[in-house]
Amino acid sequence: MSELNLKYLTLGEEGFDQNLADMLSWESVSDGDMQKLVADIIHRVRKEGDAALMDYSAKFDHFEVESMDALVLGAAEIEAAFHRLPEDQQQALQTAAQRVESYHSKQLSKSWQYTDEQGVVLGQKVTAMDKVGIYVPGGVAPLASSVIMNAMPAKVAGVSSIVMTTPAPKGEVSDFVLAAAYVSGVTECFLLGGAQAIAALAYGTETVPSVDKIVGPGNAFVATAKAQVFGKVGIDMIAGPSEILVVCDGKTNPDWVAMDLFSQAEHSHDAQAILISQDGEFLKQVEESVKKLMPTMERADTILESLNSRGVFIKVDTLEQAIELINTIAPEHLELSIDEPEQWLDRIRHAGAIFLGRYTSEALGDYCAGPNHVLPTSGTARFFSPLGVYDFQKRSSLIGASAEAANELGKVASVLARGELLSAHAQSAEYRIND
Amino acid sequence: MSELNLKYLTLGEEGFDQNLADMLSWESVSDGDMQKLVADIIHRVRKEGDAALMDYSAKFDHFEVESMDALVLGAAEIEAAFHRLPEDQQQALQTAAQRVESYHSKQLSKSWQYTDEQGVVLGQKVTAMDKVGIYVPGGVAPLASSVIMNAMPAKVAGVSSIVMTTPAPKGEVSDFVLAAAYVSGVTECFLLGGAQAIAALAYGTETVPSVDKIVGPGNAFVATAKAQVFGKVGIDMIAGPSEILVVCDGKTNPDWVAMDLFSQAEHSHDAQAILISQDGEFLKQVEESVKKLMPTMERADTILESLNSRGVFIKVDTLEQAIELINTIAPEHLELSIDEPEQWLDRIRHAGAIFLGRYTSEALGDYCAGPNHVLPTSGTARFFSPLGVYDFQKRSSLIGASAEAANELGKVASVLARGELLSAHAQSAEYRIND
Repeated sequence: MSELNLKYLTLGEEGFDQNLADMLSWESVSDGDMQKLVADIIHRVRKEGDAALMDYSAKFDHFEVESMDALVLGAAEIEAAFHRLPEDQQQALQTAAQRVESYHSKQLSKSWQYTDEQGVVLGQKVTAMDKVGIYVPGGVAPLASSVIMNAMPAKVAGVSSIVMTTPAPKGEVSDFVLAAAYVSGVTECFLLGGAQAIAALAYGTETVPSVDKIVGPGNAFVATAKAQVFGKVGIDMIAGPSEILVVCDGKTNPDWVAMDLFSQAEHSHDAQAILISQDGEFLKQVEESVKKLMPTMERADTILESLNSRGVFIKVDTLEQAIELINTIAPEHLELSIDEPEQWLDRIRHAGAIFLGRYTSEALGDYCAGPNHVLPTSGTARFFSPLGVYDFQKRSSLIGASAEAANELGKVASVLARGELLSAHAQSAEYRIND
Repeated sequence: MSELNLKYLTLGEEGFDQNLADMLSWESVSDGDMQKLVADIIHRVRKEGDAALMDYSAKFDHFEVESMDALVLGAAEIEAAFHRLPEDQQQALQTAAQRVESYHSKQLSKSWQYTDEQGVVLGQKVTAMDKVGIYVPGGVAPLASSVIMNAMPAKVAGVSSIVMTTPAPKGEVSDFVLAAAYVSGVTECFLLGGAQAIAALAYGTETVPSVDKIVGPGNAFVATAKAQVFGKVGIDMIAGPSEILVVCDGKTNPDWVAMDLFSQAEHSHDAQAILISQDGEFLKQVEESVKKLMPTMERADTILESLNSRGVFIKVDTLEQAIELINTIAPEHLELSIDEPEQWLDRIRHAGAIFLGRYTSEALGDYCAGPNHVLPTSGTARFFSPLGVYDFQKRSSLIGASAEAANELGKVASVLARGELLSAHAQSAEYRIND
């Protein structure tokens, strides 16, 4: 294992802003070859349907099937996977699902309507989407929590059909993932991965229903396919590598802080862990903890690579300065490992999720506190929100004008439409003017 | 002028579903040359900043300037344009702005927070975006209403900086458009158009500030540029051609219905106007009105082309059937030109805006009723919403666990993290377990 080589920055030193910007910088690479490959896969799934899906499963997942039946799991099979799990995992999944459901139920929007002084009925009708697709990556880690976090907001919104797709390399699929689908209200599961799964969900095949929105993480093929079908269906936000920003006053156990940084860094080599403190000595103590704990970690290689390439320890003079840096960084995860963290909330404008106090490790939010773990990355908390029930509800405007209201409003519309040189608009309003 | 050649369909006839699907079908063309051109423009603006902008203004807008000052209008200049307008336009703009502001203020989300039974503080903090950019197309029609509809939700959300860009061909910019900016809280206007304007808003130059989100309609260059900068900034939905669906029981003046159909058709050759009725005779009457009124229209050529290529008249047997078709079509604009339209609302799941009753012409909603006129097109009302205040607010999750709560939740997180083979996540939770 190579050596730890953490980047230290001090607020106020020459070049600080640029150095920080360089460390934060991350851009997804849009590769023309990848775009073409994915476009071809989508084209073929639209044209050939199930036949293309079975062919791709054989080719990419080494899973040869005689018919689509082998790629479909119904409600009974999903439930059976849950009952095969050990008791503690069953309970943990149910507790997490219940807590996530309870929190998200607070996000439900309701329709509203009123009649204004001119007698115009105005309103907003809120409805759930009909059908949603959840993509769940294959790979080493069975991402059960990802299933809960993506499916539960749709369930709470009232989406009637929540289907999941996940690749089954050589026909293998994780009981843990299926069990998470069971506790989250997933109605059907397709053993499909990659761009072909996204194409099937967007356009439908003989067996796979087309959905209104596709959410969930995935590799570059999946992400590119989601971008390409956007507009035909809705998609969730574009996610970059995961990040954590810990602001600590120096009074938290440095081992705890080191492990919280690790919990981001273990995700991937380009995940980012940042620590800010007014206490320069504490930064050094955390570095010591990092060195001490690193060799004990299962994913030490990934953690080291992540910390060496993108980790940053920042020394500030005051907590006020730390808060300002938070708004510059707009972190995905923010741990306020300080006294009375709530008193600073008003001044924090940009963050995906805020973890209050020394006891609230990010891991609680990743799994079971209740809020969603699908969060805006790479500074996009400036304009994106956590995945939520609002992502599965949509709105229709309501407008009802009486004859009198149409008479009055029609005059305004007529002037504006004529100003825009749109005379059919104007005349359509003028027909309803009666004085 | 060529002849009117309206497409008639009858629900239940052979091939109805496919014929309707063919008429509704619309896909944006993604052209590789366009993508490359736009990518090059964005690259150059990022690299050369203001110099590139001035060069593109000379090249594309035939507007040669000595310095960026000539491409910037401050608050005083925007206000001056308002005062140059005739009185009726000033009043109409102010009435529209006030009504749009009043409606949108009902959409404001507030932060919330609670402590659950386990003593965990949970919440959602809602904040406005800092900076938003509004793109306003040049071209023949000065789209004042578009300025109001795009800027006002941002103003109501509390966005502190709302900048506008609009091309100024040969240096010309419409007072009507600037005046709309004045009544909508736009803080600054840049005389920039095309992909270069989008690039400037996304990445910033010496003069143009980078923003968090870019909204507003535009030509193919603008739409492609917005798609390319998505992720660096937020953007609004991807808009196709505009459409209207009128459901009429046969008791509305056929001239009114014809003119309402025209008000969509006059937008562009690929705009879509659909009429559904249980009364076959009425459909014929509306066609007669179309023929009678067409020659009187300023944009008769566009209207005819739109009706001939994408117009559809559909005969159904019952109003129930019409409602089902609404949900299949998921129209951008829906006029319910029927008795007691509100009694059908519960069954309508997918529509951008719903206009209730014979007196509510779509034009009222386009200009001044209050709800937004930026609406989901091409069936995307299945998953998109009207532009609203919610598009300019974002949310941060709040999680605060006491030592006791961290002890309990930590056990759940630990089981799930270990199930996902993420041991740093598990350990970070386990450090806070004390029993």
